[in-house]
Amino acid sequence: MIFGRITQKWQKLIADINCEKEMGIVTLISDWGLSDYYVAGVKGMIYKFHPNATIVDISHQIQPFDSIEAAYILKNAYQSFPDGTVHIIGINTEESIKNVHIVAYYNKQYFIGTDDGIFSLIFDDEPDSIFELDIPHESSNLTFSGRDRFAKAAAHLLDGGKPEELGSVRKELVKKILFNPPVNEDSLKGMVIHIDNYHNLITNITKSEFNRFTSGSEFEIIFRSQKYKASEIHDSYGDVRPGEIVALFTSNDMLEIAINKGKAASLLGIHKSDPIVVARTKN
Amino acid sequence: MIFGRITQKWQKLIADINCEKEMGIVTLISDWGLSDYYVAGVKGMIYKFHPNATIVDISHQIQPFDSIEAAYILKNAYQSFPDGTVHIIGINTEESIKNVHIVAYYNKQYFIGTDDGIFSLIFDDEPDSIFELDIPHESSNLTFSGRDRFAKAAAHLLDGGKPEELGSVRKELVKKILFNPPVNEDSLKGMVIHIDNYHNLITNITKSEFNRFTSGSEFEIIFRSQKYKASEIHDSYGDVRPGEIVALFTSNDMLEIAINKGKAASLLGIHKSDPIVVARTKN
Amino acid sequence: MIFGRITQKWQKLIADINCEKEMGIVTLISDWGLSDYYVAGVKGMIYKFHPNATIVDISHQIQPFDSIEAAYILKNAYQSFPDGTVHIIGINTEESIKNVHIVAYYNKQYFIGTDDGIFSLIFDDEPDSIFELDIPHESSNLTFSGRDRFAKAAAHLLDGGKPEELGSVRKELVKKILFNPPVNEDSLKGMVIHIDNYHNLITNITKSEFNRFTSGSEFEIIFRSQKYKASEIHDSYGDVRPGEIVALFTSNDMLEIAINKGKAASLLGIHKSDPIVVARTKN
Repeated sequence: MIFGRITQKWQKLIADINCEKEMGIVTLISDWGLSDYYVAGVKGMIYKFHPNATIVDISHQIQPFDSIEAAYILKNAYQSFPDGTVHIIGINTEESIKNVHIVAYYNKQYFIGTDDGIFSLIFDDEPDSIFELDIPHESSNLTFSGRDRFAKAAAHLLDGGKPEELGSVRKELVKKILFNPPVNEDSLKGMVIHIDNYHNLITNITKSEFNRFTSGSEFEIIFRSQKYKASEIHDSYGDVRPGEIVALFTSNDMLEIAINKGKAASLLGIHKSDPIVVARTKN
Repeated sequence: MIFGRITQKWQKLIADINCEKEMGIVTLISDWGLSDYYVAGVKGMIYKFHPNATIVDISHQIQPFDSIEAAYILKNAYQSFPDGTVHIIGINTEESIKNVHIVAYYNKQYFIGTDDGIFSLIFDDEPDSIFELDIPHESSNLTFSGRDRFAKAAAHLLDGGKPEELGSVRKELVKKILFNPPVNEDSLKGMVIHIDNYHNLITNITKSEFNRFTSGSEFEIIFRSQKYKASEIHDSYGDVRPGEIVALFTSNDMLEIAINKGKAASLLGIHKSDPIVVARTKN
Repeated sequence: MIFGRITQKWQKLIADINCEKEMGIVTLISDWGLSDYYVAGVKGMIYKFHPNATIVDISHQIQPFDSIEAAYILKNAYQSFPDGTVHIIGINTEESIKNVHIVAYYNKQYFIGTDDGIFSLIFDDEPDSIFELDIPHESSNLTFSGRDRFAKAAAHLLDGGKPEELGSVRKELVKKILFNPPVNEDSLKGMVIHIDNYHNLITNITKSEFNRFTSGSEFEIIFRSQKYKASEIHDSYGDVRPGEIVALFTSNDMLEIAINKGKAASLLGIHKSDPIVVARTKN
């Protein structure tokens, strides 16, 4: 009997310890840059509410207001994170009647931001749940929701709080639709959607679209009005000699054009949004 | 009795566990940039002395030697952090007879750096205490105090050490005085003190100064020799249409001029230190 | 007796707690930049395998493919870190028959990367052990080994796993040899190997080489074809007036040329790889 009580007491103590050190990850993606107090302001606020948080910067170098770029980066980053991770999207954070602040639960992770369509670009299908935030801002000023509202919401979730405690259910997301590569009998017309730090060109053509279109027959990938071509898909950059063009699929299965050890975008003179066409070779 | 002793033993054990995981936050602000080993050197040293530290980068992109910019960023960032946070200021770290290394305790947080006047810009009034560091550098070389001295001092504070163990009491801070917006009957003359990542213009005119000057009457905010004006204060950027000029107060209550979804500094041709004048509208 | 059993039970419980919070540091150095999902992808994967990891960015701004720069930065950063730290080198990560993925144990720390010679530049002598990684990639795609292989290997080491469980022993490193400052009777011919954020010039002349060459006699340090000279070694930048040239040793004992509060590289028109010559003064 007496042991039973002691045990309970200790169990409680140990539960406290475990509880206290509950970690949990919050990521941040934004267009705040790295020269201002914005990023640190959000982090400080998260630690104030949840001292044991692990905070990860995805990127703060998103072009100001560019939701599409932020969606591309976050879509490819979040899948590496453990279940329960909370992602704060610090872009176009100003709330309006049309674009409200939400928390969405998708793929066992939480996403907090302004629903201007960015969520529909990150997710492949409908999220499990959506709640419109109605927790008050920490300040009377409404220009810094990342710090004054999203950080609080994130800390609430890390503490094991439920998303429904942050606001009321919302039925659906604002939809943003991206140009999808049109296919006809002879060609699959994609475009460059991202240029990475190596000046590699990432297109909006997925591996499965590519394979469906080529279905084993010969092809040419044409860019910069037929000036440059590739007619083979490689497994790695090193499959071609340094300085040569190589087509391959990225680690997230998008068609990529690169130059081994070189800078494709600048050397080939190709920019974001430029067309990349896959054509069946005429026999 | 016997239970009492067990309890004590376990309490000790559990205290050890709690002790070991004592976290504590250190922030870093500097002009070290992100392409060198300086930031990592400081972090490694902090972890060596205090493995459970949580280290937060405020910014390492401060213009070299620009204490005023660093003070502006840190002043606006530190207030989001929990009590007990330790801030390392890695700018102009070289010690001289005039400018010594200090730790100051202010607003329940610690600030470590070189007292060249920067502390007087961060604090609104005198700190609770100031100590001149006299702990030895970790290396015979004196060019990297951020790593070889400040990191050690920060770890000492995170470990629960007292600041007075780091050096001897110092009476006062070196004072740096910034140009304050002069007011006369007709105008309040401020200037741009910061341009953020969105090219928003932050001025040195506070909300209270502004309100005291305008006291409910009509006004004009004039910049670039009367070429551009604003005659209203808004609550958020979205109160005006994209591309239009908007005046509002920042989350830290400074007058800000912006262009909704646009880049005010470059579009209006305004630079840091340019004048921003608030004038009473003549009737 | 009965107390003994309780004690064991609690010891186990407490061991579990300690175990769970085993931290351990992983650092990342790469040419991935800060605008992409690459850095976050690697971090997410590390947290997935080892939730309590402490991850430190050394730099992600290494020039693409520049192993020599990465080696310089890591060599100077790693020494500040505690024993047991794991360093992931995310540069030229593509594996080939000649350049395999390895983990090396040196100076009580682990280094994971592609053995293209970079390890031989980081270490001063042979590492204690080298293992060639043969753990599978997390993805069928081989273009992102930093995330799909190195992160797993790092988590394994943080978990207390042995490096020999990651692959088979490898006898030696690929050797990369850097130009060493040639010495003759009259001069010691070095070069600029790094320009830091302050535009300070760091040379490949070590303090000991310098001292051996000058051995107490008078000298001149000549750069930009005799246009600029220095004939004294100072202890700190502040030993000369702002705007004046100062020669000193860096915190890692390399000869450095700087301008106090100024930008030596741009003001003197000196670039990476430019010669810096130490000459004995003729009497």
